[in-house]
Amino acid sequence: MSHATPGTPDRVHLDNGGRAPWHPLARQAFEQALADGWADPRRLHAEGRRAARLVDGAREAVGAVLGARTQEIHFTPGHTASLHAAVASAAAARRRAGSVIVTSAVERSALLHAARAAGKQGSVPVDRLGRVDADAMVAAVRVPGAALAALQHANGEVGTLQPVGTVHDTARAAGVPLLVDAGASVGHVAVPETWDLLAADPADWGGPAGVGVLAVRQRVRTAPVGPEDEDPWAPGGVSVPLAFAAAVALQAVEADRVAQDARRRELVDRIRAEVSRIPDVEVVGDPRGRLPHVATFSFLYVDGEALVTELDRHGFAVGSGSACTASTLEPSHVLAAMGVLTHGNVRIALDRGTTADEVDRFCAVLPGAVARVREMLGVGGL
Amino acid sequence: MSHATPGTPDRVHLDNGGRAPWHPLARQAFEQALADGWADPRRLHAEGRRAARLVDGAREAVGAVLGARTQEIHFTPGHTASLHAAVASAAAARRRAGSVIVTSAVERSALLHAARAAGKQGSVPVDRLGRVDADAMVAAVRVPGAALAALQHANGEVGTLQPVGTVHDTARAAGVPLLVDAGASVGHVAVPETWDLLAADPADWGGPAGVGVLAVRQRVRTAPVGPEDEDPWAPGGVSVPLAFAAAVALQAVEADRVAQDARRRELVDRIRAEVSRIPDVEVVGDPRGRLPHVATFSFLYVDGEALVTELDRHGFAVGSGSACTASTLEPSHVLAAMGVLTHGNVRIALDRGTTADEVDRFCAVLPGAVARVREMLGVGGL
Repeated sequence: MSHATPGTPDRVHLDNGGRAPWHPLARQAFEQALADGWADPRRLHAEGRRAARLVDGAREAVGAVLGARTQEIHFTPGHTASLHAAVASAAAARRRAGSVIVTSAVERSALLHAARAAGKQGSVPVDRLGRVDADAMVAAVRVPGAALAALQHANGEVGTLQPVGTVHDTARAAGVPLLVDAGASVGHVAVPETWDLLAADPADWGGPAGVGVLAVRQRVRTAPVGPEDEDPWAPGGVSVPLAFAAAVALQAVEADRVAQDARRRELVDRIRAEVSRIPDVEVVGDPRGRLPHVATFSFLYVDGEALVTELDRHGFAVGSGSACTASTLEPSHVLAAMGVLTHGNVRIALDRGTTADEVDRFCAVLPGAVARVREMLGVGGL
Repeated sequence: MSHATPGTPDRVHLDNGGRAPWHPLARQAFEQALADGWADPRRLHAEGRRAARLVDGAREAVGAVLGARTQEIHFTPGHTASLHAAVASAAAARRRAGSVIVTSAVERSALLHAARAAGKQGSVPVDRLGRVDADAMVAAVRVPGAALAALQHANGEVGTLQPVGTVHDTARAAGVPLLVDAGASVGHVAVPETWDLLAADPADWGGPAGVGVLAVRQRVRTAPVGPEDEDPWAPGGVSVPLAFAAAVALQAVEADRVAQDARRRELVDRIRAEVSRIPDVEVVGDPRGRLPHVATFSFLYVDGEALVTELDRHGFAVGSGSACTASTLEPSHVLAAMGVLTHGNVRIALDRGTTADEVDRFCAVLPGAVARVREMLGVGGL
């Protein structure tokens, strides 16, 4: 989808992972819910009950997509809050069984941080495609003292799908709950059934930021860590209009998910093929078992930040796993764990509105941009 | 402000504390920011930088109202998150000095919970009007081992203003930072200068829920407790449109705050006078040093929940500090700490749009509603 700025009508936004533009139906839903559901849903009066009905409808809609019961769906203040609450709460409930939290090495840093805060963290390595070593993870889950296992459904940085089914089989047999971070996958690929707790991110599927989704199977024991008189998953409550907009957006993207999968998968294949012709590049992530809309690659002799800026000058917005944010200059821990190039990294996440023409234009501009950045760094001849 | 529901054109919503309808300018600002600022403000490309400029503008606007520098203003996922982060972070930074967190007994339960989680909690009593014993609080702050003091600017349940200036003088002299929860007061009364950390709640002043404001003086040492590569006050980031709408709403309500103070103060005086004529009632909170828009009273021989429901049937939405929420059946810890009636409680928070006619209609309906509930409970003759 092209987001026209005054004077730059041809902007192409290819950085839609984790923060995509709102789906048009989400905006409509938000407006409606703001009129009908601005009140506090915990109140007993008509306005409160109306807001509560909107939340319940939103929970039901999200549950239908996630394969969960309405009462298993909770809204949280955001995806990071979901991961923190899930790890802290599930670990606290299993304190007698142990305090080791088994994770892959490529989970989100928020989850890894929550795991370290809640117990001893057992980190399982990944292969060069970013896929966790299922045998090692299974073995780690079986070790007495495991309180919780956490494995993402797909890695949002490189797109690789993880063997959550295999790990869940073992975890269930061992009595260890499995938390699946599906923040990069829900809305893009089918949701797995193999989880005990599952976190999903509305801001990634075309819903709003400022609200998260956490599904907790009824059989899972949790020990909420907040005040007793608060919703344990959202102390202080959530914004009803945001929750409602998130649910409507999810229904909308789920309705044409299969068509979008085929369409975007082909565009990503095209990007991967074109990029691989550029000298000294490593195309990253599993070429097959992957998200349909994510493409990631790293260039030798290129600074990621400089390449993002150069592409931005030419009208293309992309992400980068190397010094991609203002808040950190550290290279991506995901790329480091995979043993691939951690610098000169570019990450593409196609929107549902991204066109073939936009992808072709990007592929046409990229080689020149890489060459210019290499020239600036004095490695043009390489 | 009357919120018309189909079939109920005469609804009067008097439960605007903590979750007020959006100010009309907040809706406009949200729409604009959603178009210009949907991207992740941590990104380096044009869309990200544009979103970051909106956040910075919002921080500057909020800082101007709170009497703080732009860089001292942080957006959080919500007011509860602000209180949790402020307590945890300020306490962690002062661990060497001590671990006692001095609070009043009538702070929000989220703050009391955070204080218990972060250290030993020293709770200071309040008088029958809900005002903290300033001498006792000053003495508690001076005791070696105090890591942090927390005192609300005003109590949102009963409206009583607290002596934050006196407590801050002592706290500064003792080197103990003071956290002021101004979640019930910002937008309604002048913001005090006497704080080291100050939390304010957009959902209370006509901005959105789903975003909070935390101001931290630059001199205050903090030890953020989240992942290093995240915004310590908002891991995962905040919604830019919500933050922008919150700031615009604050500017708007601040612009006519003084006029609204006089207007609503008179209406609350009227309510307090009318209510006090009903038999067996206790009008709660400081009649002078109080928020302009809050009125609270407790009825003997009345169940609060039943009275909320009875008033709702007659078109009036009010809050209650006794079993007022679906999540708890406990009486309000605020009313209990004040030593006043904890049951049969009704809480009014006037919106900026509440009219004198609506207040008069409420005052006309209330005595009958109380009598009917007492009849239902078999105490009609009392």
